[in-house]
Amino acid sequence: MTMTITTPPCTAPVSPVSPTAGTLRPLGLGEVRITGGFWGDRQRVNATHTLSHIGDRLESEGWLPNFDLAAAGTLPAGRRGREFADSEIYKYLEALAWEIGRSDDVELEETFRSVVARVTAAQEADGYLNTNFGRDGQGARWSDLEWGHELYNLGHLFQAAVARHRTRPLADDGLIGVARRAADLVCDVFGVGGIEAVCGHPEVEVGLAELGRSVDEPRYIAQSSLFVDRRGHGTLSDIEWGRSYYQDDQPLRGAASLRGHAVRANYLAAGAVDVAVENADGALLDALRSQWSRTRARRTYVTGGQGSHHQDEAFGEDWELPPDRAYSETCAGIGSVMFSWRLLLADGDARYADLIERTLFNVLATSPSADGRAFFYANTLHQRVPGTPADPNKTSVRASSSLRAPWFEVSCCPPNVARTLASLDAYIATADDDGMQVHQYAPAEIRTLLSDGRRVSVDVETAFPMEGLVRVVVRETEPEPWTLSLRIPEWADGAVLRVQPTDGPAEARAVPVGYVTERRSFRAGDVVELDLPLRPRVSHPDGRLDAVRGCVVVERGPEVFALESSDLPDHGHVDDIVIDLDTAPYEKDGRIWVKAGGRSDEPRAWPYGRAECVATSATDVALVPYHEWGNRGPSTMRVWLPVV
Amino acid sequence: MTMTITTPPCTAPVSPVSPTAGTLRPLGLGEVRITGGFWGDRQRVNATHTLSHIGDRLESEGWLPNFDLAAAGTLPAGRRGREFADSEIYKYLEALAWEIGRSDDVELEETFRSVVARVTAAQEADGYLNTNFGRDGQGARWSDLEWGHELYNLGHLFQAAVARHRTRPLADDGLIGVARRAADLVCDVFGVGGIEAVCGHPEVEVGLAELGRSVDEPRYIAQSSLFVDRRGHGTLSDIEWGRSYYQDDQPLRGAASLRGHAVRANYLAAGAVDVAVENADGALLDALRSQWSRTRARRTYVTGGQGSHHQDEAFGEDWELPPDRAYSETCAGIGSVMFSWRLLLADGDARYADLIERTLFNVLATSPSADGRAFFYANTLHQRVPGTPADPNKTSVRASSSLRAPWFEVSCCPPNVARTLASLDAYIATADDDGMQVHQYAPAEIRTLLSDGRRVSVDVETAFPMEGLVRVVVRETEPEPWTLSLRIPEWADGAVLRVQPTDGPAEARAVPVGYVTERRSFRAGDVVELDLPLRPRVSHPDGRLDAVRGCVVVERGPEVFALESSDLPDHGHVDDIVIDLDTAPYEKDGRIWVKAGGRSDEPRAWPYGRAECVATSATDVALVPYHEWGNRGPSTMRVWLPVV
Repeated sequence: MTMTITTPPCTAPVSPVSPTAGTLRPLGLGEVRITGGFWGDRQRVNATHTLSHIGDRLESEGWLPNFDLAAAGTLPAGRRGREFADSEIYKYLEALAWEIGRSDDVELEETFRSVVARVTAAQEADGYLNTNFGRDGQGARWSDLEWGHELYNLGHLFQAAVARHRTRPLADDGLIGVARRAADLVCDVFGVGGIEAVCGHPEVEVGLAELGRSVDEPRYIAQSSLFVDRRGHGTLSDIEWGRSYYQDDQPLRGAASLRGHAVRANYLAAGAVDVAVENADGALLDALRSQWSRTRARRTYVTGGQGSHHQDEAFGEDWELPPDRAYSETCAGIGSVMFSWRLLLADGDARYADLIERTLFNVLATSPSADGRAFFYANTLHQRVPGTPADPNKTSVRASSSLRAPWFEVSCCPPNVARTLASLDAYIATADDDGMQVHQYAPAEIRTLLSDGRRVSVDVETAFPMEGLVRVVVRETEPEPWTLSLRIPEWADGAVLRVQPTDGPAEARAVPVGYVTERRSFRAGDVVELDLPLRPRVSHPDGRLDAVRGCVVVERGPEVFALESSDLPDHGHVDDIVIDLDTAPYEKDGRIWVKAGGRSDEPRAWPYGRAECVATSATDVALVPYHEWGNRGPSTMRVWLPVV
Repeated sequence: MTMTITTPPCTAPVSPVSPTAGTLRPLGLGEVRITGGFWGDRQRVNATHTLSHIGDRLESEGWLPNFDLAAAGTLPAGRRGREFADSEIYKYLEALAWEIGRSDDVELEETFRSVVARVTAAQEADGYLNTNFGRDGQGARWSDLEWGHELYNLGHLFQAAVARHRTRPLADDGLIGVARRAADLVCDVFGVGGIEAVCGHPEVEVGLAELGRSVDEPRYIAQSSLFVDRRGHGTLSDIEWGRSYYQDDQPLRGAASLRGHAVRANYLAAGAVDVAVENADGALLDALRSQWSRTRARRTYVTGGQGSHHQDEAFGEDWELPPDRAYSETCAGIGSVMFSWRLLLADGDARYADLIERTLFNVLATSPSADGRAFFYANTLHQRVPGTPADPNKTSVRASSSLRAPWFEVSCCPPNVARTLASLDAYIATADDDGMQVHQYAPAEIRTLLSDGRRVSVDVETAFPMEGLVRVVVRETEPEPWTLSLRIPEWADGAVLRVQPTDGPAEARAVPVGYVTERRSFRAGDVVELDLPLRPRVSHPDGRLDAVRGCVVVERGPEVFALESSDLPDHGHVDDIVIDLDTAPYEKDGRIWVKAGGRSDEPRAWPYGRAECVATSATDVALVPYHEWGNRGPSTMRVWLPVV
């Protein structure tokens, strides 16, 4: 994992991120295809249910029609939605573009073109594109950088255009032109000598950098660098929560940890990795690695979720990770995956892929309902009071985390989930000069060319995470040796690798966490088999994690489990349960069970006193994967199970 | 404690609350005087430092000059402060009135009259009084009941007028007239057939009820009843946090617990007790008693503080009491005292006085700095990161709880503390037909008439809470027997009562918590002595209090103690300490000490894993009374001490 890509790949990766340097080269759509399983199911629901659900809502909420009003010149009358509503259309376009890239769906292509046409019609002659600023009766362009989200919206436009440009480079829909005209304007207005400021919500950085890579325009990358370097110097005004809310309190190079609004922080960090990689800026990359490590060690929920405050949707202090007030916004989890993925490409370090795995299974997979038409915006780790079902005909407030809701007043999460699922194939595997690395386990076909032009194809066969067996079957190869690297996840203590060559005896060996490499002259039909231990395990928190002291969490593979009241007899409440650790969690009938007692004492008139707590005789209760909770109606739920 | 006042008291109590019915009759200023000690010191600082500090700030912030602009007819130009800024002037007037009532201070009297004159000049011909509404360029009167605070402001005006009217019934400053004209207008506008709504911030209820009692105007009490009954029917619009934020989600009679914004909830409950008592509305009173009990059992911090959410300054769910994100607003504590005091007068139940004691010592006493010129707005129970000192020339944001600040953009707490300290004498003792009850222990002179006209006087001599000895010395009495009741606080397990009559042998007896009564034919010189045990004690939380599981709190008498980094060697951090409960907390050199170990393990790269926590060898660390924390510069602090 120490080699660097020195020759250009034979095909440019059809991937959300395509750095020009780094340890690993992403394998994009066309090179990797998830063929089923846990993620394949979710991609199917995303394609068949979620995308149309989002399209319908963008129409009925008036957020897409805002563009028609802009084109007709009748704004601001009739404009609906918040200042960042435009961005949801762009994330929707990005999701459509990736899905069309995967499936060639004709209907989605038609939808895509129609939406692009409406967006295009709203763009002004000089490239400006925003339905909320610049007209009579609206604020002037760039007059509210703190809260206006103009550059944020454009960042999402750029990502959508990149998705389309990479999946359909020859398409004549014009989206890439729209993006370029807007990006040129941003460079003119905010470049050297222009407005010396940044956007209150980072996103344009990551959008500009990728657009620059995609159309080979260094000016966009330079503008992204400028935005990254400018932030932290207090160009935005101070607010009640402090400038750390939008990371404008201190320069990125000097910060110890992610802080402030968790989505903003992760988007900014992701864009900064892009800039650091393109500029070969080792100092900036070091700062980001160190922030990632500290954030993971002290500010990340066991689910991979980030953000402890409802008030400002923000990270708390180190060790401030309350399960009951966990905000853990779905979009912050996606932002964290964006940040980790870029560092993984840069460094090839398994820790990044470990956190991605955890976040995908326990945040991304948790947000959408089974039918893909309702979502968690915030992802609490402890639900004390059963919620009330969301009215499907209404928009919900974002932090109503008790049950998934079809739509929110601030509805960033649904299209963010959609674009991530539609491009998930691109997060499975990478290549370098010597071979191929598989980071995430899903049934998949991987067909690529190594840098020297050799064709290699493998199939991944697995029922992960339900089962721990992962079979990589070589389908096509050339005689020269190459290296297959497989990630042994941080939780997979006791993993075993079995190599079954077609022309020799099978070998098995225990493999430690990190990447296991198998270098050999592969032949078609060779099988490399990984056995990942999936025994349920009990994890304790660091003693500094006050809010979960005296509690444990049960995990199995990458999945975090929860106790949900739907599994308790007699409408029991999860808060009356105490776990008995003398009996280890065990599997039976396809579920995980723990032994648990009830609290025998009634609440006292004053809840502090000399008596310590007591628990009654124990019974066995079943747990549910955290990502499945809340699918059986209103319930109480807790991830952290008290042992006292 | 079951008797009811049947004959009018010989003197109307000079007290913030003076019900016309109830179990106990308050003894006001003129009947009770705190003569020194813990609270006497704080009253002195309040009179000599805090009041002038507040007066200066109200002037320099422009909040008092707003009234001059109103009188000059130049508003809205130049108006400063938030929509509720008027109310700070009224709370300041209330504080001045009580302090003048206590001390006859000539300078304060002059200040009081000058402020009243400026307020009076701003009142409009029909009684309307508000600097933020009703003029060209301002919102129309009563056009923003959710957030406008017009009625809230007037509630504070009424309480100020009551304070003046009771302490100086013959004064010619005219404040009572200002209040009556405004109250008449409120009744005209919001009475039956008028605007069918309530104010977003309860307070007018408690103000109108007391004004009605003070000037004997049933119309004001009826209007207060109307407001109480109207609330909970959704006359205010829905907001992101729900109508529970302003208690407009369900009628008070049907609610299980206090909920929503903690100051709003307590002010409303206090006003509702007033209404229930005046209307002899037993059902409403029962509902309030039950809400008080449940709120105490499940939604109150060990300090007596209330409110778990920064976001909406609100109560959380049952058992949601995070120490690190405790909001525990100073004003919510004061509101809780207001609510409890009214129930105590109605019922004579010691539990109400217990919670008052706890809240006074650990919330009210915590807010002001030793010099009375800086305040906590929020009262966290766990400070993880040392704060930065507040700039004395700036206003601070309210939830900056790391250090006390001189003033806030929302500065309700400083004048609320001031008015409460200035009237604190009135919360010490009460009377009924048969005698006198002492609820709170402070050096004091109590001189009153029993209902039948008998004069009784006692002195209370004590160094409480530093020492547990309370001596009640009878100074003046008549031969017929009467009953002296003393509260044995809920924490005083093992209290001993000694009666030392001048004409007989001393008797001692162990007394249980609640009220101990001594009925006899007292003689001047008789001494009733109470010995309250002040050994430091360890309290455990109910097992449902997730956020403090595996922790204990150390208390001594009514005081909660905290570990502050200022007491740790080598700039230690409180979060690296684990308490060793094998050694009980002990007293040495006037401080309380606990045995504590340090965490030996470095934070891990991923804070969840198989290893349980370990602690190193122990040393002794001193604790600080919670109300004293933060007086030695930036520090970390925790009330709940981990045992694992």
